[in-house]
Amino acid sequence: MKHVLSVKQFLDKDLLASLFSRADQFQAMPAAEYPKPLEHMTLATVFYEPSTRTRLSFETAIQNLGAHLVTVENAADNSSWKKGESIEDTAHMLNAYVEGIVMRHPEIGMPARAAAVSKVPVFNAGDGGGEHPTQALLDLYSIQRMKGKVDGLKIALVGDLAHSRTHHSLANILSIYDVELFLISPESLAMPEDVLANLTKQGVTFHILTSWDDVIGDLDVIYMNRVQKERFKLIEEYQALKGSFILTNEIANLMKKDAIILDPLPRIEEITVEVDSNPRAQYFQQAKNGLYLRMALLEYIYTS
Amino acid sequence: MKHVLSVKQFLDKDLLASLFSRADQFQAMPAAEYPKPLEHMTLATVFYEPSTRTRLSFETAIQNLGAHLVTVENAADNSSWKKGESIEDTAHMLNAYVEGIVMRHPEIGMPARAAAVSKVPVFNAGDGGGEHPTQALLDLYSIQRMKGKVDGLKIALVGDLAHSRTHHSLANILSIYDVELFLISPESLAMPEDVLANLTKQGVTFHILTSWDDVIGDLDVIYMNRVQKERFKLIEEYQALKGSFILTNEIANLMKKDAIILDPLPRIEEITVEVDSNPRAQYFQQAKNGLYLRMALLEYIYTS
Amino acid sequence: MKHVLSVKQFLDKDLLASLFSRADQFQAMPAAEYPKPLEHMTLATVFYEPSTRTRLSFETAIQNLGAHLVTVENAADNSSWKKGESIEDTAHMLNAYVEGIVMRHPEIGMPARAAAVSKVPVFNAGDGGGEHPTQALLDLYSIQRMKGKVDGLKIALVGDLAHSRTHHSLANILSIYDVELFLISPESLAMPEDVLANLTKQGVTFHILTSWDDVIGDLDVIYMNRVQKERFKLIEEYQALKGSFILTNEIANLMKKDAIILDPLPRIEEITVEVDSNPRAQYFQQAKNGLYLRMALLEYIYTS
Repeated sequence: MKHVLSVKQFLDKDLLASLFSRADQFQAMPAAEYPKPLEHMTLATVFYEPSTRTRLSFETAIQNLGAHLVTVENAADNSSWKKGESIEDTAHMLNAYVEGIVMRHPEIGMPARAAAVSKVPVFNAGDGGGEHPTQALLDLYSIQRMKGKVDGLKIALVGDLAHSRTHHSLANILSIYDVELFLISPESLAMPEDVLANLTKQGVTFHILTSWDDVIGDLDVIYMNRVQKERFKLIEEYQALKGSFILTNEIANLMKKDAIILDPLPRIEEITVEVDSNPRAQYFQQAKNGLYLRMALLEYIYTS
Repeated sequence: MKHVLSVKQFLDKDLLASLFSRADQFQAMPAAEYPKPLEHMTLATVFYEPSTRTRLSFETAIQNLGAHLVTVENAADNSSWKKGESIEDTAHMLNAYVEGIVMRHPEIGMPARAAAVSKVPVFNAGDGGGEHPTQALLDLYSIQRMKGKVDGLKIALVGDLAHSRTHHSLANILSIYDVELFLISPESLAMPEDVLANLTKQGVTFHILTSWDDVIGDLDVIYMNRVQKERFKLIEEYQALKGSFILTNEIANLMKKDAIILDPLPRIEEITVEVDSNPRAQYFQQAKNGLYLRMALLEYIYTS
Repeated sequence: MKHVLSVKQFLDKDLLASLFSRADQFQAMPAAEYPKPLEHMTLATVFYEPSTRTRLSFETAIQNLGAHLVTVENAADNSSWKKGESIEDTAHMLNAYVEGIVMRHPEIGMPARAAAVSKVPVFNAGDGGGEHPTQALLDLYSIQRMKGKVDGLKIALVGDLAHSRTHHSLANILSIYDVELFLISPESLAMPEDVLANLTKQGVTFHILTSWDDVIGDLDVIYMNRVQKERFKLIEEYQALKGSFILTNEIANLMKKDAIILDPLPRIEEITVEVDSNPRAQYFQQAKNGLYLRMALLEYIYTS
């Protein structure tokens, strides 16, 4: 593996177990003891769409492992993309300076096109409606770390399942485990056919629901996500659906004592603020897990 | 002290003397000998409003003391703020990655709200019409360093005293010293009541003036500031008042030989360029003092 | 030499040979062995006009040589420039924090004005229609490195010779060598008189052509450049001329086997993508040469 473009590269329980175990080690390690496998390298973060969370997490991980950092915070406006340069040429150019490229792009497939011509690793940090593989990995890692296992869990994915890249990727990567999935959304925002087809093919038990009322007390994990305005063409459509599923403390307290609530963040209104102090709320710890997962992944790519 | 949010945290002459003495040491020290109290840490600068001066000064200080840096140059456009994330959630998120947050925001109170949920230090790098504590500290440090003392000085604050956060904070911190203040502005841009009330409470002698003619020759320090367009609602109002007080070389030469001229910068037209070579002009050295003061402050926060 | 503002500072074959030889050494050197002449320094990149290529190249070079980096990716919007601060004041301010300034600006002469008041080195990273000296140096270095010499070569400059800063600077620096130049453009985009006058004065043989047909097979180097939309006042004028000279593989194959094709990039449509795999295509290697040339230049400025 050279590039990190898709969760499909990670449908291997042994590989995942090894990455997660390494991420656990990083969590336990004093920062002074981090290894420096990226020493004497420079990595670039190039974001054609803003994502502070993903960018800062990668940038911290990159520097923790010893590399220098160069960054394009707003590549949509401040790069040659605007002058009409192809993504392939941008990749060639970056190859002239750096040993790795972390790329976020609003268009599906752009990181993959960059990777196709790149001699240095390209990390897909989200490509529009496409994939966000490190998010899926950190989500899965959070489940593994917090529940001690993945097999045997009852996991609900809730919200705008139609447009949420995060939900799609997580469903795909969960499909190699023995889990029971609850896909909960308004009818018009249901999980796409291709994701369902994959779950069926992998033999995953799943339930398509429009309410969590009957299952909330049985869940081990509930994975929320905001309804993303930027994925809608009509603002009216967004307004009508954005409040479909709101997790309040009242609802959270119906869950099992050791259930966990996850959310890729930013949280807009899908989880009320009062839930933050509920012991089941693990979304901020989930973000922290992302740092260590990315460190494990970077180390893996550059040393194996 | 964990966070740095307000000058009110620094109304302690001993603490100030100790910070200023440490800043003096940093000025005298070769860069190779800077201590590294922030080693193995990452700090984030997150600017919801541009401020090159404050940002670069903090970023240089942070790196001088051994930390890695991640930055959001334009958080207003390039962060989840735009997607509707609360400042508290942003703070939680940053806590997942970094050991300190330097935040500039156009709205009063945002750094304080971030600090309220942050386990890592939050530094207020300016919150709209609110505070800019490190600016006030470097201003006071500049007076102390250049005049050798603060007590006993005659200090004029000149310009738009109504809207200038910098003038308010400096007046507040000067109030614990035995100084004589001259508050010089057009009538409509006079110092707000709450600042005056504090000066009265602290027993500071102050004079409200609409002209500097009668006092210019007696001053030890004159502290200018631009009339800030962004603080006005009506452009006409701004146009009418922006040139109210312009310090020319002719006027500067009426000052005592050892008087000093300060300005938080950027300087727009409140001081003419010819003054730059006047030996009383100390505003560029004042900016440099900001670097060392911020180093002293960072070291203090992370080691005491 | 303290500042790097113009190719005119480099019209010295010995100096150039020494820089190029040092750049060659850097290319051959493992990154772990780079010297650190900039250790304990901080350098700033301040870009009033976007240029990912130039900025990331400088930033990698700066960090490779041991300095810390602070950056203003979008100084046009995120700096005090917008508040009306003069470039001289910005330079004074930067001098308070950093040991070097890399500046890109859309207006001619801005880096020179900054340099005039700066005690630390200022590097012109492109000033509008003015100069881009490190680009000219890396272009010349690429010719020297790839052809083993400069004297005796037949070199064509092709495209919008009227507006291309890159072409002007390269012509000026080539004028001290014994080269034969072919200046190929539509009539309305011909090389400006001042550049021609300099070539004449230096005794360079040059040919003004509106077609490459008669000379393509004789060239050692062809230097293409995109027609830059941002240099035109009328969009119609741009549209009419942008496709004037397009280098296809068919044309490239008319060139000598050991001829080289250069382009400062971004490449828009002046070279078709199929040419990338032609062994004559050296424009991506040319970008890489820029990194090592800038390292050599930075080292030279800070150690000699």
